[in-house]
Amino acid sequence: MPKGTSIAFIGTGVMGRSMTGHLIDAGNELHVHNRTRQKAQPLLDAGARWHASAGEAAAQAEVVITMLGFPKDVEESYLGEGGILARARRGVLLVDMTTSSPFLARRISEEARARGLQALDAPVSGGDIGAREARLVIMAGGDPAAFERALPILSLMGRNIALQGPAGAGQHCKMANQIACAVGMIAWCEALAYARKAGLDPERVHASISGGAAGSWALTNLGPRALKGDFAPGFYVKHIRKDIGIAIASAKEMGLELPGLECARQLYERVSVSGWDELGTQALYRLYVSL
Amino acid sequence: MPKGTSIAFIGTGVMGRSMTGHLIDAGNELHVHNRTRQKAQPLLDAGARWHASAGEAAAQAEVVITMLGFPKDVEESYLGEGGILARARRGVLLVDMTTSSPFLARRISEEARARGLQALDAPVSGGDIGAREARLVIMAGGDPAAFERALPILSLMGRNIALQGPAGAGQHCKMANQIACAVGMIAWCEALAYARKAGLDPERVHASISGGAAGSWALTNLGPRALKGDFAPGFYVKHIRKDIGIAIASAKEMGLELPGLECARQLYERVSVSGWDELGTQALYRLYVSL
Repeated sequence: MPKGTSIAFIGTGVMGRSMTGHLIDAGNELHVHNRTRQKAQPLLDAGARWHASAGEAAAQAEVVITMLGFPKDVEESYLGEGGILARARRGVLLVDMTTSSPFLARRISEEARARGLQALDAPVSGGDIGAREARLVIMAGGDPAAFERALPILSLMGRNIALQGPAGAGQHCKMANQIACAVGMIAWCEALAYARKAGLDPERVHASISGGAAGSWALTNLGPRALKGDFAPGFYVKHIRKDIGIAIASAKEMGLELPGLECARQLYERVSVSGWDELGTQALYRLYVSL
Repeated sequence: MPKGTSIAFIGTGVMGRSMTGHLIDAGNELHVHNRTRQKAQPLLDAGARWHASAGEAAAQAEVVITMLGFPKDVEESYLGEGGILARARRGVLLVDMTTSSPFLARRISEEARARGLQALDAPVSGGDIGAREARLVIMAGGDPAAFERALPILSLMGRNIALQGPAGAGQHCKMANQIACAVGMIAWCEALAYARKAGLDPERVHASISGGAAGSWALTNLGPRALKGDFAPGFYVKHIRKDIGIAIASAKEMGLELPGLECARQLYERVSVSGWDELGTQALYRLYVSL
């Protein structure tokens, strides 16, 4: 992919803004759209062109990237009237980086193929910091040719980039990631809640257990925040709930029983009922402490 | 604690043998007992003295260390007729390093105090490798004076050594560790089982997810073994089941609800029913694959 590729980027929230910034810095021509125009302003100041809809931005581009909120946003942006599939020019490469449904990814891929377009699902992990530092993990699904074509652009945003299989495989891989995250959250929350209830100093317990077989990224990074009462969102409760919902639906479709994930679903439902949807996922610890 | 302390070490299995070895190397006088004498033979060859019972070994020592299998073994060795409490000389320091019940630890501590003895519970994590390399994590409960007295000896076997609180606190801390381990096992097993069921290459998925927010010691160290079909025990299914049982009983006693741990209990029950008690804890993955 030569420099100066014309790229439409739809969804310039916290993640999308950083990612788009890297694409601009590398000399690409950016066409952006976002539900709230104001959030795109720093990119417009940096030279990106604003468009009133996803379809309109897509019509200007060789490559269309989406980074949206929920599967319904993805569905509407791609399949809605005047949307990306309707407006993109023949031969264009579509890359959905939203964490979304594997089945929707397959449907978009089939529709895209029927219209002479290439599609990839390529959700990411690494959060806002990974996006800012261009070291996202990117998990792709689609045809190898589409993946090869996307790779130079994806490489501007991430580091650990792999084609996991055909359309939907990127989303499936991301679901595997989210399953490990969601259930892993229960692991350390119950450990520290137990320690607290037993009258121990949870911070001292953390220092004893986080470096060994009980250790995890989440225990190391989220445990201390939760113990300090810091529930500010790195990753929102409402978003882990979305992902758990997609993964459970997908597992059900495949006839796979996931009791740990079902337990996480129920617990995060209770976190949500407590009114903590806008807190970070470590708010699960708060639930245990409040029981 | 000067060199040449007379130490009784009860329980010279895989862990105990390595630990006793370090104590001998440091110039202490070791008195050992084990259910199976044969397992103590390398230590006897290295200069330790054999005794026919825990109580008999304890009668010779200034410090008594136990590293046994189950709480019932601990109870019998300490509280049984002619056991450690009955035979130890006044002023002796007792250190139970078995992973055992916090309530039993408190009971032993009280009995010990009544007999003019000092007692610590000091279970460990780090496994056979940690024991061999003298870098166990040691989680202690008891009086600060007893802890200070034990520290020079514990330092010969471990590195991250902390007094977590009064009698039983070491066991409580170890339970927190085991809760995180047991529930964390579900996290990565369900993630990789999902990936496999979705038709992805679980090893490629592992490479994408293990370095980020889904990452854990277990995913990194046990995931690849499970994917290769290697279920050889690092830590036995029967032992995680024992620990889950102690932690659930203890949580119930404290009125704490731990749905994730209850889920782990049920899953490892199924692993056990499958006949895999003698496999490593990563056999949980095999359960998901066999569903």
